[in-house]
Amino acid sequence: MIVVMSKDATPEDINRVADWLTAEGFRVHISSGVERTIIGVIGENTERAVGAATMPAVDQVVPVQRPYKLVGRDFHPDDSQIRVRDDVVFGGPRVIVMAGPCAVESREQVMEAAETVARLGLSVLRGGAYKPRTSPYSFQGLGLEGLKILAEARERYGLLIITEAVDEASLRHVAEWADIVQIGARNMQNFELLKRVGQVNRPVLLKRGLSATIDEWLMAAEYIAAHGNPNIILCERGIRTYETKTRNTLDLSAVPVVKQLSHLPVVIDPSHATGQWSWVAPMARAAVAAGADGLLIEAHPRPEEALSDGPQSLNLTRLAALIPSLRTVAEAVGRTL
Amino acid sequence: MIVVMSKDATPEDINRVADWLTAEGFRVHISSGVERTIIGVIGENTERAVGAATMPAVDQVVPVQRPYKLVGRDFHPDDSQIRVRDDVVFGGPRVIVMAGPCAVESREQVMEAAETVARLGLSVLRGGAYKPRTSPYSFQGLGLEGLKILAEARERYGLLIITEAVDEASLRHVAEWADIVQIGARNMQNFELLKRVGQVNRPVLLKRGLSATIDEWLMAAEYIAAHGNPNIILCERGIRTYETKTRNTLDLSAVPVVKQLSHLPVVIDPSHATGQWSWVAPMARAAVAAGADGLLIEAHPRPEEALSDGPQSLNLTRLAALIPSLRTVAEAVGRTL
Amino acid sequence: MIVVMSKDATPEDINRVADWLTAEGFRVHISSGVERTIIGVIGENTERAVGAATMPAVDQVVPVQRPYKLVGRDFHPDDSQIRVRDDVVFGGPRVIVMAGPCAVESREQVMEAAETVARLGLSVLRGGAYKPRTSPYSFQGLGLEGLKILAEARERYGLLIITEAVDEASLRHVAEWADIVQIGARNMQNFELLKRVGQVNRPVLLKRGLSATIDEWLMAAEYIAAHGNPNIILCERGIRTYETKTRNTLDLSAVPVVKQLSHLPVVIDPSHATGQWSWVAPMARAAVAAGADGLLIEAHPRPEEALSDGPQSLNLTRLAALIPSLRTVAEAVGRTL
Amino acid sequence: MIVVMSKDATPEDINRVADWLTAEGFRVHISSGVERTIIGVIGENTERAVGAATMPAVDQVVPVQRPYKLVGRDFHPDDSQIRVRDDVVFGGPRVIVMAGPCAVESREQVMEAAETVARLGLSVLRGGAYKPRTSPYSFQGLGLEGLKILAEARERYGLLIITEAVDEASLRHVAEWADIVQIGARNMQNFELLKRVGQVNRPVLLKRGLSATIDEWLMAAEYIAAHGNPNIILCERGIRTYETKTRNTLDLSAVPVVKQLSHLPVVIDPSHATGQWSWVAPMARAAVAAGADGLLIEAHPRPEEALSDGPQSLNLTRLAALIPSLRTVAEAVGRTL
Repeated sequence: MIVVMSKDATPEDINRVADWLTAEGFRVHISSGVERTIIGVIGENTERAVGAATMPAVDQVVPVQRPYKLVGRDFHPDDSQIRVRDDVVFGGPRVIVMAGPCAVESREQVMEAAETVARLGLSVLRGGAYKPRTSPYSFQGLGLEGLKILAEARERYGLLIITEAVDEASLRHVAEWADIVQIGARNMQNFELLKRVGQVNRPVLLKRGLSATIDEWLMAAEYIAAHGNPNIILCERGIRTYETKTRNTLDLSAVPVVKQLSHLPVVIDPSHATGQWSWVAPMARAAVAAGADGLLIEAHPRPEEALSDGPQSLNLTRLAALIPSLRTVAEAVGRTL
Repeated sequence: MIVVMSKDATPEDINRVADWLTAEGFRVHISSGVERTIIGVIGENTERAVGAATMPAVDQVVPVQRPYKLVGRDFHPDDSQIRVRDDVVFGGPRVIVMAGPCAVESREQVMEAAETVARLGLSVLRGGAYKPRTSPYSFQGLGLEGLKILAEARERYGLLIITEAVDEASLRHVAEWADIVQIGARNMQNFELLKRVGQVNRPVLLKRGLSATIDEWLMAAEYIAAHGNPNIILCERGIRTYETKTRNTLDLSAVPVVKQLSHLPVVIDPSHATGQWSWVAPMARAAVAAGADGLLIEAHPRPEEALSDGPQSLNLTRLAALIPSLRTVAEAVGRTL
Repeated sequence: MIVVMSKDATPEDINRVADWLTAEGFRVHISSGVERTIIGVIGENTERAVGAATMPAVDQVVPVQRPYKLVGRDFHPDDSQIRVRDDVVFGGPRVIVMAGPCAVESREQVMEAAETVARLGLSVLRGGAYKPRTSPYSFQGLGLEGLKILAEARERYGLLIITEAVDEASLRHVAEWADIVQIGARNMQNFELLKRVGQVNRPVLLKRGLSATIDEWLMAAEYIAAHGNPNIILCERGIRTYETKTRNTLDLSAVPVVKQLSHLPVVIDPSHATGQWSWVAPMARAAVAAGADGLLIEAHPRPEEALSDGPQSLNLTRLAALIPSLRTVAEAVGRTL
Repeated sequence: MIVVMSKDATPEDINRVADWLTAEGFRVHISSGVERTIIGVIGENTERAVGAATMPAVDQVVPVQRPYKLVGRDFHPDDSQIRVRDDVVFGGPRVIVMAGPCAVESREQVMEAAETVARLGLSVLRGGAYKPRTSPYSFQGLGLEGLKILAEARERYGLLIITEAVDEASLRHVAEWADIVQIGARNMQNFELLKRVGQVNRPVLLKRGLSATIDEWLMAAEYIAAHGNPNIILCERGIRTYETKTRNTLDLSAVPVVKQLSHLPVVIDPSHATGQWSWVAPMARAAVAAGADGLLIEAHPRPEEALSDGPQSLNLTRLAALIPSLRTVAEAVGRTL
């Protein structure tokens, strides 16, 4: 922490702050500039020094340390590789494409999607059994029955399953039936849920909150890691901005930024980000070119009949057409798919 | 819903959409303009018509109905008055001021704050026992012990208590020990928690999410109402914008907007909104002038020692100085305090 | 400036930065913390030290000084009072209400509005002769003819005139015919225009840009002051956020924030901020309660026929109804109107 | 336009609106739904129908037509190709890379950059002679002298020149000395400047405003086209959001969105978008993968000494290293570079 004093701070003001910081157990370095004095705060847990902000003649208190430790690159310089069931590695040379419907609606729908996903050589099937919906009157998911349908597709087509948990009860089921636990954007700061995910023995995909800063997103990952689960995959899915043409604004620069700050793999969800199927393909290619470790794509056998997010879902023909172009771009940046 | 066709839509394109809508059980009205054709969709649950967005030659699908019913003014034209324990009414002529520390830290701290709150003639004491914190390493609250301290203050000073619930377990405790259940901004779209709050026999204060639209906020209230609890107080606490001088941007115009759309009372939290104690007083006065039904203000005996949000807390002297000016403004707009 | 080194910076890295800063003419203070070293940069024009951000092992460069001098409170602790034509003072005890139509459309329309403005005891008539419009096909204003209509209203009703200048040519005319030059939100960073306004002998009202930070807004004022014109009135008119119910989001907390940072008066435009006439009155009252020095309100004899911004304009009956309530709130916070 | 009536609108309310619209010269289509009545407005210049928003029992007025005509794809279905001096075509199969320093600082600096740009096979040199700067105390550019240095580099290395105009006077000089006129983000809604650019016989690169919607950006282009200059290249350079790790948030999805709405070419400026040189390369590759028609990249012989935007500038070695990877990605998506 650095405490910046006001321009008109007196020596008494400066001493009062320095004394308080010392009493709190910190060491202080005082630098007197032409216009202002700044006080460097040295010690453990310097975030407590923010209390100085309420003292007279203090202009601002500026943090200088990264607040995350376990997920930060400072303490773990090499990229993490998150392995799922021996087969699939996030954060390695291969770009992992996860595809499937937004919501599990029926056995037939899931099998049809799974058949295509498997045929295209992709390894992970997505599909929501527990659906957080903005309206209480919208379809809320098939729950446990949906998980069983996904598990059946896994057996039949040799796929891994990713699906969302929304509370303690659903988390227990998801951890039992699926291979990767997804935490959705709206629950990114549901800290009680994050603590429980930290105790689960499954890799977790953590979506960035709708308006979470990158620091807050990494702090949410830190919650999971601090509670015992280091197998975290980050997922950028678009942030909320003033632009309304797209459902959200895909913050693709989060890929290099996160890779500088953290050792965790990052994947991109171009479907929720754009909200429109015709923009999914170019943004998926861009994500691979930007260095993303994977993609999470909505695909549905009949998007116009989807109970959730139809407009942003690729039909299976369009999904099939997309994959070769992703492979070409992956190879152009030195990766496989 | 209104389906707007592309400029180059053919009669076949238009018929295809109209036929699909009819098959889905809607009636359609087709209007052919100079440049475009629009199709009005009439019937129940027209949100399903969004599926048309994936069809050829459809330019956009525009919703024209409010998605909330129970909390909307369309179906409940008069203001709701939310009564807490006979004594206090939100949404009536009196502006209700709730004050107290961000977090319950100790018995002594709470009693000191409660004594001031009672002496100033305010009726509700705030204080968090379960704290959702951005960092897993920050103080997470005293939990049940904190609730008991609050309850003791209630008995001793004749105050009502508002405190936050963060999951199913804490909700059970809060509903037992407190008078108003607070749902925080980060949980505004924790739909599983909202469903449970709907089953609780206590008034609930629902904070607006950090980047929730007013429609999403009202839909979150609709979840609570649809699950059985109509006693909802809305609380605006600042939204996330690009401006960084303030912690958040207080969207005070949400007061008249919400009052037009909904019959529920609205209160303002100027402490979280500004993040700085010196800006709390002018924004509290502005909130009352804008028509807010109440205020939620952070006040701490010694803000510089607060374990949470010290910089935005008033000390008790400043709280005492604020109240008379709030009363004067309340009277200027025809209310009491 | 403070240069924060990376956690893994070596002594060589630190020396390289310190040497470069010294060579650039700065003095440096080095503080070695538990995890990081920070380098305080002391001297004139420290913003040049940002070059260090490109050097190896530099994590971030943090500015600690306010970039504005002439408009900042640091160097001018007392409130500025901006006097217009002897009669009207912005920044004193009286709250100044400016009202009138968005655009000058006809002589009759302006006279009708001016008659009401004068009758209500307000001193300043607003009206645009040069209109910056989003579409090239929208009404662009009457230009010089419009200015002459405004000047006629001034003579007839004893009012002061405020109107917008959009480029060098219109600025010459506005400075000749009007009493206050308005610079609109879209031109807040039209630096060439700001420089010219600095050379004009008229008070200027500077609207905050649509997404300008408070610092950028004050720097725009600094341009005007640095080029010779200290008579600046700041005007907050809503910022762009993700919320779409209101045209913009009125950032009313900008009032106390600006008053802390600057000595200049601040007024509020609730019409552009909300975009809807029915929300103008509560936000105007809130602005006065928050400490604003004035209001800029759109009022039109027949809003439904307005060529620009009709939905947000009060009709003259509603304007007349608003004024007494503003006066009561002004008195409640110790001012007049 | 569609006028949506309130739920409680009476037949008299509906007739009043319909009569007013008819009197204004529109035809109306009335659709009565289960809950609401909607009125379709048909005719020319339907934007005037917004006046209905002020009438009793009107809930909202929804526009259904694109407001741009000349730059919209509705009326010009094929991609535009913008040719500069016979040699370079924007909007064709080749991705055009423009590189060079943010500001022209010296003859030596420009020649050094130009030599590299030419050696790498790029065709366009960028460099600012007129600099819009946030602070009046920052370097404001060399002006005409800077243009002459750029022109000398053009002759010596066979490059085209792009540089910014900031007002009428600089526009005259830029149009004389450069090949492409750049309009910066802060001037995107400087409508008087746009009108003048419309009269210039040079291609223009129009940067998106800091918080401009895509519709506003296309309307700014419409200004230029409506005043006579159809040779417009759009440039996305990052938008303002709440995220502060990056200087702005690169809205890369604007590429497919704009290409759907407009026939104009779109290029990306990854330097201003990210604000940090180390993130420029991945975002440049992503832009090409997303379908951008070109790139505008800041490169400086010695970024640490740059008078403007040093932290986001590539040095010339890094620029040279980037180009081959861009070429590979371009080929992966079927283009050249």
